[in-house]
Amino acid sequence: MELARVVGQVVATVRSKGLPHNSLLLVDMLDHEGNSTGRREVALDTIGAGEGEWVILVRGSAASRVCSPETPLDLAVVGIVDQVSSRAGTMYSKN
Amino acid sequence: MELARVVGQVVATVRSKGLPHNSLLLVDMLDHEGNSTGRREVALDTIGAGEGEWVILVRGSAASRVCSPETPLDLAVVGIVDQVSSRAGTMYSKN
Amino acid sequence: MELARVVGQVVATVRSKGLPHNSLLLVDMLDHEGNSTGRREVALDTIGAGEGEWVILVRGSAASRVCSPETPLDLAVVGIVDQVSSRAGTMYSKN
Amino acid sequence: MELARVVGQVVATVRSKGLPHNSLLLVDMLDHEGNSTGRREVALDTIGAGEGEWVILVRGSAASRVCSPETPLDLAVVGIVDQVSSRAGTMYSKN
Amino acid sequence: MELARVVGQVVATVRSKGLPHNSLLLVDMLDHEGNSTGRREVALDTIGAGEGEWVILVRGSAASRVCSPETPLDLAVVGIVDQVSSRAGTMYSKN
Repeated sequence: MELARVVGQVVATVRSKGLPHNSLLLVDMLDHEGNSTGRREVALDTIGAGEGEWVILVRGSAASRVCSPETPLDLAVVGIVDQVSSRAGTMYSKN
Repeated sequence: MELARVVGQVVATVRSKGLPHNSLLLVDMLDHEGNSTGRREVALDTIGAGEGEWVILVRGSAASRVCSPETPLDLAVVGIVDQVSSRAGTMYSKN
Repeated sequence: MELARVVGQVVATVRSKGLPHNSLLLVDMLDHEGNSTGRREVALDTIGAGEGEWVILVRGSAASRVCSPETPLDLAVVGIVDQVSSRAGTMYSKN
Repeated sequence: MELARVVGQVVATVRSKGLPHNSLLLVDMLDHEGNSTGRREVALDTIGAGEGEWVILVRGSAASRVCSPETPLDLAVVGIVDQVSSRAGTMYSKN
Repeated sequence: MELARVVGQVVATVRSKGLPHNSLLLVDMLDHEGNSTGRREVALDTIGAGEGEWVILVRGSAASRVCSPETPLDLAVVGIVDQVSSRAGTMYSKN
């Protein structure tokens, strides 16, 4: 799974069949120091992540399992990060 | 999911079994500022996206869910973007 | 899907169970101007693409759908390109 | 599969349905000399890998098979490495 | 599929459930001239590839089809290469 920061929203009223009307978040992928890599993608959110928060993303056909297996989806929020810690100390803490 | 801009069409009359005769769009992947990354791919479109529009693409085996699960397909348009907004303002607006 | 040019053949008589004896093409991935990216891969062909032709490739587990779902395959030719056109003109035309 | 080194932990109490409460390890992907590539990801661990150890990771929808097929998961530890050896000698040995 | 050269072995006695005890090969991915790209991965081998040989690899969930569909596996040897040839001549020949 990848760590990302929520940075915005994407609005799309015309959607293909099967894509649910959950919110589509604009997310920035993070590097090993927690900075943006410059790669920005769109993730479906079913658990209420807010702007500025760090999230855990699942990529590929497994992402649809947060909805139903028939969903045409390849990136979904599966967790809101509380803390990321390594030997070097705490990289991120929500509060 | 990834954001892309529709830039053209691909015509292929000889197709493998199972690939439907929907239109195949030439799309440019976009970076975090909405500029083309130089990566150009081919996406199946079932919802009528037009040249110049921004679209949301699903990659991998999940893409086929816009048709049927047996479709040999790895990139499909799942949404036509109305607006992309971040803390820094509106990145893209359709009209 | 990705655009590629057929550049050669791969011969492999020892194959794992399930990999069919269709021809295995050596293909060069193409960039947005139609030049080789330097990335060269091996794609299964069931529709008779010839050397020098542009093809459309499907990647990942969806590729096996040109054969049967149990095929251990991740890259397959799904179309022979007739024409690729964008606002800037015709990028490629078969004849 | 990819070789990685366990470097930390990720805590996430808000999780989407289906993501099990196994530990989520922060892992650094390794290059051909066993050094960190700078790419850092999050992997689910069901076999008790410890910080500093080298592990084998499975990516994509196959990763969920260490739990159940419905798990929204794309990176899992499938082995703890004892030794990696090549013609040039032993790259890594656990003890 | 990708072309790679077998360069070594990985030993891992602690494995997650479902990962079979076939040998795990250390493989170097090859560029369009047959040189190592510097990307080194771990592939399951069921057909007896030896060190120094060129192999064809299948990536992603399709890789598990060389074993059983429930295997947590994302890279498998599906062929031992005899010859790779392009318009420019023979790139590789086993003997």
